[in-house]
Amino acid sequence: MAPVSEPAAPSIRTAVPGPATHSIKEELDTVLDARTVQMVIDYDKSSGNYITDVDGNTYLDVYAQIASIPVGYNNPTLLEAARSPEIVSALVNRPAVGNFPSHQWLALLREGLMRAAPLGCTQVFPAQSGSEANDLAFKAAFMAYRRQQRASNPWTEYEQVTAMKNQAPGSPDLAILSFRNSFHGRSFGSLSTTRSKPVHKLDIPAFKWPQATFPQLRYPSEDHVQENAQEEQRCLQEVENIIHSWHCPVAGIIVEPIQSEGGDNHASPAFFQRLQAIAKTHRISLIVDEVQTGFGATGKFWAHEYWELSSPPDIVTFSKKAQTAGYFFSDEKLRPDKAYRQFNTWMGDAARIIICNAVIDEILDKKLVEKTAQVGASLYDSLVILGSKYPDRMQNLRGKNRGTYIAFDTPDSGVLLKKMRELGINIGSCGAQTIRLRPMLIFEESHIPPLLAAFETSFSQLA
Amino acid sequence: MAPVSEPAAPSIRTAVPGPATHSIKEELDTVLDARTVQMVIDYDKSSGNYITDVDGNTYLDVYAQIASIPVGYNNPTLLEAARSPEIVSALVNRPAVGNFPSHQWLALLREGLMRAAPLGCTQVFPAQSGSEANDLAFKAAFMAYRRQQRASNPWTEYEQVTAMKNQAPGSPDLAILSFRNSFHGRSFGSLSTTRSKPVHKLDIPAFKWPQATFPQLRYPSEDHVQENAQEEQRCLQEVENIIHSWHCPVAGIIVEPIQSEGGDNHASPAFFQRLQAIAKTHRISLIVDEVQTGFGATGKFWAHEYWELSSPPDIVTFSKKAQTAGYFFSDEKLRPDKAYRQFNTWMGDAARIIICNAVIDEILDKKLVEKTAQVGASLYDSLVILGSKYPDRMQNLRGKNRGTYIAFDTPDSGVLLKKMRELGINIGSCGAQTIRLRPMLIFEESHIPPLLAAFETSFSQLA
Repeated sequence: MAPVSEPAAPSIRTAVPGPATHSIKEELDTVLDARTVQMVIDYDKSSGNYITDVDGNTYLDVYAQIASIPVGYNNPTLLEAARSPEIVSALVNRPAVGNFPSHQWLALLREGLMRAAPLGCTQVFPAQSGSEANDLAFKAAFMAYRRQQRASNPWTEYEQVTAMKNQAPGSPDLAILSFRNSFHGRSFGSLSTTRSKPVHKLDIPAFKWPQATFPQLRYPSEDHVQENAQEEQRCLQEVENIIHSWHCPVAGIIVEPIQSEGGDNHASPAFFQRLQAIAKTHRISLIVDEVQTGFGATGKFWAHEYWELSSPPDIVTFSKKAQTAGYFFSDEKLRPDKAYRQFNTWMGDAARIIICNAVIDEILDKKLVEKTAQVGASLYDSLVILGSKYPDRMQNLRGKNRGTYIAFDTPDSGVLLKKMRELGINIGSCGAQTIRLRPMLIFEESHIPPLLAAFETSFSQLA
Repeated sequence: MAPVSEPAAPSIRTAVPGPATHSIKEELDTVLDARTVQMVIDYDKSSGNYITDVDGNTYLDVYAQIASIPVGYNNPTLLEAARSPEIVSALVNRPAVGNFPSHQWLALLREGLMRAAPLGCTQVFPAQSGSEANDLAFKAAFMAYRRQQRASNPWTEYEQVTAMKNQAPGSPDLAILSFRNSFHGRSFGSLSTTRSKPVHKLDIPAFKWPQATFPQLRYPSEDHVQENAQEEQRCLQEVENIIHSWHCPVAGIIVEPIQSEGGDNHASPAFFQRLQAIAKTHRISLIVDEVQTGFGATGKFWAHEYWELSSPPDIVTFSKKAQTAGYFFSDEKLRPDKAYRQFNTWMGDAARIIICNAVIDEILDKKLVEKTAQVGASLYDSLVILGSKYPDRMQNLRGKNRGTYIAFDTPDSGVLLKKMRELGINIGSCGAQTIRLRPMLIFEESHIPPLLAAFETSFSQLA
């Protein structure tokens, strides 16, 4: 059931963006770079799936803050958590949690966050953003790799001296392999694995790490079964070749279950099963980046559940809908051999974990993952029909049986986004020409008609 | 005035750490690496300068969560902020603030956070940790450096193609110079500039960036004036030499006003003035890392105010006592030439900025910076006297006229910390053999006697 207060439909009163957005954006620009501001929002007036801007325009929001609002604006369960004495204490008494955790820390994790841990992942390291989570995961992978090499030998004096100089062997030349078109974040570690767009990477020094081709599947996939299987095989072979030939050891592989910023690129469960097998053969870590796919939108709590792996992934990173961040891991050896190697002052934010726990409550209590799987199936079916009417506007529809994690290509995504927003739909793009749907987990059957109507109007006007 | 509810003195009831800490630590260790846990704290029972553990022991806290609690546990002004409708909204409706800021975002920054901006720094980029702030500052420095080189020429196709492969010229070989013994964080960028301890760096790939020697001054400084000046000159010459000879261009210099994790190492205002002059000559960015020194503890709001620079620093990073993080900057050119180059989903956390604004309120209303300067002077004088009684236990006392940012060397800092904690004082160390004082900004004259008494007892027992 949609929240009681949610509007029945979008309503647009001004040009989009409106004059109030323009004026506030201009003032904002005096203290920070506001060029990216699209709309200024009155969150107090926003509710459920609907977002209201400062010009009084109300949009059905299927972009959800770059896929990060999980259960709707002003969700009552989250509001309750945000007013709890526990969160007030976490906000005002922020500890160096690795040294001086609160007496509530254990429950926040064990009875809270760990409910979200992927099957087989028994431990967590908290963080504050997806980029940080991936950086931390890489560090864990590097330490685990060197631990195997070092066996039971202690750190040598020479290793310690060279580490301080950023030189090998103490600071070794090791790599993380990522895939072309992937997005893993923008910090120096994660950005070295990100391969989405030049605007993310230009002028920034990067580690000399390798990229393999991610499968480029053809759609509808049922018509290209063998071709797609060959494409995946080709990419896996490339991974093997790189591991064998790269100038330094590859200590880990990072992969998104669905490449999101890169254009919603999918691969089959078999591809990922074999990728895990490659990682196991080389005794390196497989890091599954579920920053965007995690927490239910694909119709499973974690997208990698679709892979039915024979053993859990080594590391799963999360953020966005979790409203906090970090990595879960399955192997005790991914704990460093000594304390304080993986450490920082705050190690996450208990206040944000309290919000995350309310998100998990809401997801479990209301069976939102299962519902998203169902609603997604209806939405996908509707889009198939619409696509058959507008084949020039909607190509390569993908995300079947992946909840509401649905996307398609269109000739000019920028124009379509603008048109959709003028019709009261806030929606996002990715890759070069892809429209991605990223509704919240409370997106329901009743939200499909206004979304479809806006697509139809846009397509017919653009045709 | 100390908060009404603050205890009159420390009280220790059990062995330290006590049985409840041990037992919770053991349980915590099943879900995360809890080896670093020193005490489990009941923050609801902690107040002002005093922290109470789950065993009922109460300590005077002059470590303050690795220098990050600004105005006391359960500070009433912060409690009020943590219960405000604004923070509730920020917690439950977390935007992708670069795209869809709230209508309150402008006021939170312009009338809030920007009150803390160093003189001449007119802009801010919000972040979530000191490490992230430094990484972002490096990216800004790199983009600005390349912008000068590129002049008004557009990005070339070749730059864009190579950037995607982590290769020059698109992803250029550029460096940030840092100082030996510095600590700037643990993400891949910041860790490449951190030079504190092998445990921070071992096994982690690092950029081939240079380090210069930070002055190693002798104390008491009034007895070593010429020697110390020569030492500083030697280090500055080393900086010049590195910039001229490093294998790639140095695009920025990062420096702490007082090297904190590295052992509380000071340098004179003249040293920093000349460092800025070097940066200006080479048209590279000077990044002042005030993550630990910022927000008042040195007796100025920003420690770099002591330098009386003729023009503002290019970039000042902050975190810890700010309870949020980011960088302030002074030069319009440190905004990238295009939108979306410095960007991420959350770009800080408005909830944490609301807490920061309450911290700033408290600092300004209660003149806590000025008070810290005064209390620090008394504390320093008392320590001089104590040091003259225990010259074997207290050496190289430093931090005169730097508020409560005071430190000294001692033969076995680990033993002293343990003894102090058994006497009800929670205190920290840094470097190889340094005790650092990091009380909160509400540390008062009345807190000096219990602290001094514990030092005296410890020293006499250890002598």
